[in-house]
Amino acid sequence: MEQQHSPNPSTPLLDQVPTPEALRTLQPAQLRQLADELREEMIATVGHTGGHLGSGLGVVELTVALHYVFNTPEDRLIWDVGHQAYPHKILTGRRDRIRTLRQGGGLSGFTKRSESEYDPFGTAHSSTSISAAIGFAMANKIKGEPGRGIAVIGDGAMSAGMAYEAMNNAQAAGNRLVVILNDNDMSIAPPVGGLSGYLARLVSSGQFLGLRDLARKFGRHLPRPLQMAAKKTDEFARGMAMGGTLFEELGFYYVGPIDGHDLDALVPVLENVRDAAEGPILIHVVTQKGKGYAPAEQAADKYHGVQKFNVVTGEQAKAPAGPPSYTSVFAKALLAEAETDPTICAITAAMPTGTGLDKFAQAYPDRLFDVGIAEQHAVTFAAGMAAQGMRPFCAIYSTFLQRAYDQVVHDVALQNLPVRFAIDRAGLVGADGATHAGSFDVTYLASLPNMVVMAAADEAELVHMTHTAARHDSSPIAFRYPRGNGVGVALPETPQLLEIGKGRVVREGSKVAILSLGTRLGEALKAADQLDARGLSTTVADLRFVKPLDDDLIRRLIATHEVVVTIEEGSIGGLGAHVLTMASDEGLTDTGLKIRTMRLPDIFQDHDKPDAQYDEAGLNAPHIVDTVLKALRHNSAGIEDGLLALGTAV
Amino acid sequence: MEQQHSPNPSTPLLDQVPTPEALRTLQPAQLRQLADELREEMIATVGHTGGHLGSGLGVVELTVALHYVFNTPEDRLIWDVGHQAYPHKILTGRRDRIRTLRQGGGLSGFTKRSESEYDPFGTAHSSTSISAAIGFAMANKIKGEPGRGIAVIGDGAMSAGMAYEAMNNAQAAGNRLVVILNDNDMSIAPPVGGLSGYLARLVSSGQFLGLRDLARKFGRHLPRPLQMAAKKTDEFARGMAMGGTLFEELGFYYVGPIDGHDLDALVPVLENVRDAAEGPILIHVVTQKGKGYAPAEQAADKYHGVQKFNVVTGEQAKAPAGPPSYTSVFAKALLAEAETDPTICAITAAMPTGTGLDKFAQAYPDRLFDVGIAEQHAVTFAAGMAAQGMRPFCAIYSTFLQRAYDQVVHDVALQNLPVRFAIDRAGLVGADGATHAGSFDVTYLASLPNMVVMAAADEAELVHMTHTAARHDSSPIAFRYPRGNGVGVALPETPQLLEIGKGRVVREGSKVAILSLGTRLGEALKAADQLDARGLSTTVADLRFVKPLDDDLIRRLIATHEVVVTIEEGSIGGLGAHVLTMASDEGLTDTGLKIRTMRLPDIFQDHDKPDAQYDEAGLNAPHIVDTVLKALRHNSAGIEDGLLALGTAV
Repeated sequence: MEQQHSPNPSTPLLDQVPTPEALRTLQPAQLRQLADELREEMIATVGHTGGHLGSGLGVVELTVALHYVFNTPEDRLIWDVGHQAYPHKILTGRRDRIRTLRQGGGLSGFTKRSESEYDPFGTAHSSTSISAAIGFAMANKIKGEPGRGIAVIGDGAMSAGMAYEAMNNAQAAGNRLVVILNDNDMSIAPPVGGLSGYLARLVSSGQFLGLRDLARKFGRHLPRPLQMAAKKTDEFARGMAMGGTLFEELGFYYVGPIDGHDLDALVPVLENVRDAAEGPILIHVVTQKGKGYAPAEQAADKYHGVQKFNVVTGEQAKAPAGPPSYTSVFAKALLAEAETDPTICAITAAMPTGTGLDKFAQAYPDRLFDVGIAEQHAVTFAAGMAAQGMRPFCAIYSTFLQRAYDQVVHDVALQNLPVRFAIDRAGLVGADGATHAGSFDVTYLASLPNMVVMAAADEAELVHMTHTAARHDSSPIAFRYPRGNGVGVALPETPQLLEIGKGRVVREGSKVAILSLGTRLGEALKAADQLDARGLSTTVADLRFVKPLDDDLIRRLIATHEVVVTIEEGSIGGLGAHVLTMASDEGLTDTGLKIRTMRLPDIFQDHDKPDAQYDEAGLNAPHIVDTVLKALRHNSAGIEDGLLALGTAV
Repeated sequence: MEQQHSPNPSTPLLDQVPTPEALRTLQPAQLRQLADELREEMIATVGHTGGHLGSGLGVVELTVALHYVFNTPEDRLIWDVGHQAYPHKILTGRRDRIRTLRQGGGLSGFTKRSESEYDPFGTAHSSTSISAAIGFAMANKIKGEPGRGIAVIGDGAMSAGMAYEAMNNAQAAGNRLVVILNDNDMSIAPPVGGLSGYLARLVSSGQFLGLRDLARKFGRHLPRPLQMAAKKTDEFARGMAMGGTLFEELGFYYVGPIDGHDLDALVPVLENVRDAAEGPILIHVVTQKGKGYAPAEQAADKYHGVQKFNVVTGEQAKAPAGPPSYTSVFAKALLAEAETDPTICAITAAMPTGTGLDKFAQAYPDRLFDVGIAEQHAVTFAAGMAAQGMRPFCAIYSTFLQRAYDQVVHDVALQNLPVRFAIDRAGLVGADGATHAGSFDVTYLASLPNMVVMAAADEAELVHMTHTAARHDSSPIAFRYPRGNGVGVALPETPQLLEIGKGRVVREGSKVAILSLGTRLGEALKAADQLDARGLSTTVADLRFVKPLDDDLIRRLIATHEVVVTIEEGSIGGLGAHVLTMASDEGLTDTGLKIRTMRLPDIFQDHDKPDAQYDEAGLNAPHIVDTVLKALRHNSAGIEDGLLALGTAV
């Protein structure tokens, strides 16, 4: 498809198809043109907004075919992960807002229930779609209502245990469940593991199942072919012929592989499945990530996530020059540790680039483990390695570590095994929004016995913490750091071994003490300047550790300051809660303690620019100043007035 | 095996085999006698202690064979779940302490690293063993040291996604990884799902692979048979002949099924695998849960977990009569709700009996879903059902809900879907110990936006909360209740609809306020009596909700009492943290607030009787009294003295 792309493509047919209802009035012969126009619209959109490109381009035909054949929204279509759903959004009444994707107040980069009735289930974390689809299917079955559950899931997402658990529970849903395995041999990174090898063999072992194959196999008019193989022996023979035994052994009716860009094959196969299948169906569709846009097809990552780009040339806008990202600082620091310590190894769950470990993989391929989208395995595998004397670093985003919480509790913390958790994307994450925010890790980790929990205030601190974690063999240890670039401090030539459970005073004052954990330190220092300018001498401490807490430092600051404020990029239950608990344990509140805890609000915050998100959260310098001033007023104005004033402000 | 069993069996051979080293000096012909004696010792032991019987009886021969063939402890043998490891404990130097199983200070009912070098990895939660075994194998591979990772995992445990994630990552470990699939067609309950059906077909489709089959297949002297099938085509043919294709497609070398009680087959197969295999191995062993003890073989649950019993008759000691268990109260209450509301359904993850839902299954089989050991799927499946208008109750133990934390966050809370979480086994759980304690759920749930979190103070409250959850459609809602029997209050004829976020004052006083969440209420009331007797008039409130918190009630009690104490059966970050956060938000600590939070200590507590555990935790009535008195003294004695006194007590 050597087509000329345009930032404002002409889309005469797409213009007449605002909804799936309209789509379903088209003739099959028109679908090719519609798909082509949809692809051009998609390229132009992401050229304008940035975002996920390759995945969406790969499923243009599939999107058209699914909405054409199935009765959406009554049939519940769930896009696993959802970053491939831009074409779906364009086709389901959101074309007018499509250029607001991932921007504050605009469309989400994933599917979202509040956006459209065509998004029955929000996605973003991988591998949830089959479970949800079974839920929809079973609910309708119980209620005696029509409507299928249709999950579209990538081969990468199939490596997650959750997908397998769902597959293992599919049978009760019968033909109300349709799973489309979108096999592009590529999740974000190339896929790993036994299943991936299996799928590759399926695809390479034979030709695509096209219209003529189906006709030859099941009769010229495709008369409900899937009913024909009801007997077990027949099913087995067919499984052999087409591959797919693994899925059939789990009780699925396997059809495939099918060329996912060939609408002439896709539409009749889906129609047959819709009308004829008697058990849960798995349709194995092979697609090409980045399809139809040469720059994406040729790029190693297939333009998975891109900046705004020039639609004609494919050239992406350069990110403004600035300090290195936290991710790259961590990766470099870990590489330095690995150079001198052969026991250090690194584990990523399908995020070698996202965690910066691609560099580690090049230098020490034998000590880098990409386990696929399999956080549970990643953590317990690391625990086993630690029990055998290795020093494993699990580098997992905060939000994805939630997937392995039980393993952190039961296999690591309870056994006090020295697994190192490098927790990227802690705090708010900007355009990826609520589903990817790293809000809860401090709360869910610092409540665990044995666990050491740190947060880096800047990129130099991250180097120290990586080093400290490498040398800490007596317990598990976690350190968190945000998405995005560092603040521009000089990186240390030699990393510092931090004393466990000790914070540092960054700025000495006498009246106000700000206890900061993580990268709000910069805002705390700004706030301190403003408070100083008002005559309120302000101390700022970077606590570094939330567990163990620096009791001595906190005790001293409480004793010597009039107001104490804690601030963190996390939910309730984190630093603030730990400081308050320690203070009340010791009776420090008994005779008066003016303390306020600043934390993420009790909402799931929508996507926006990070600074706007922190503004909404009330965690920037002006909010700190405001919190301090209100606390001070609370004193002078008397309790009752103070409470009233506070009521409107917090 | 119609053997006479004895509470003190004669075990002449076993007496000479204190360790696996001694075992490995025996002749193969002696192993049958050793296994028989080991089985008798096992029966006598559990007759004395109670505990897990059926699982251990099923693996007596396997235990003998594994230690005989492999070089434990250098070869790292990991028993998945670990409740089948009593014979292993007897054979690995712990026979002298075996009658202390599950008792305070005694051996754990699971494997535990601190007990023995033969327990390289503690287990208890299901399906961790393969990941850990790969960790051991890879660590040794990197270090160039000998030692395999051997995982023994049941067919039920194979339904967990975690096991699949590990299987998908096995290839790198090569022949250092040995997985023994212990197929007894039974986890705790009969297994469910597609994989279970697949295994059943494997076993039923052919005879066991015995010594003669192996000889016939691979030559009389079993000359490294597994090397013989290197070519893909051969492997495929062999897979067909023996079954096992599913595992082979994932890259495993499948051998089986083998009769797991036939030492003459088991030992040579294991020896061949040990010496000859070139890739990761899966040995499919078929065993009978309860094997060799007629009362266990004949019982529906195969004596999975038993009270002390008469070894000769099999008759179990009756639990003393008393109030109904929380589990049964919940189950009955949910059944009552389901009678009038056809949208109510229930989901269990392989615990139909443990959660009481077996009764629900009988009454409403179409609305009960046992998904197997698959908590992740359970929760997102429930979310899908809720999104389609059903009212699903996920009944999952507190400790196992950790497995589905991301699904609770991402699929339920973030989408604000009304999934009901019935959280059994909250708090300390007695003989099951640290791995099964429900310590963290309040912390990890109450930090989530949208989530409502309740805890039942007694069994009548549990009825109200079940009803309240059934009627609550505007958000997810969770309610927790402990293991064991209720306190004996009358059950309500008509359940009460609780107002969301409102607690109740159970006892009015004026000087001391105890804010209780959950079943510490009884201890709080006892403490109140004792405090009253000392002239300290005490209020006791049952907060019922930790989220949303009853701010009005807390504010009033803080304002009108001299000392406030919170108490809960959970870790830091729960009720205490939420009360303190609310109080500091509102400036209530500014001019003095004497508040103490009582919670579980920052350790993983070992197994013991529940009351002894709460004593160790410092959460019984005397501790409450002590906490109040110390807080009061802190006042009168002045801060410095008070702090010193407190230092020794908390």
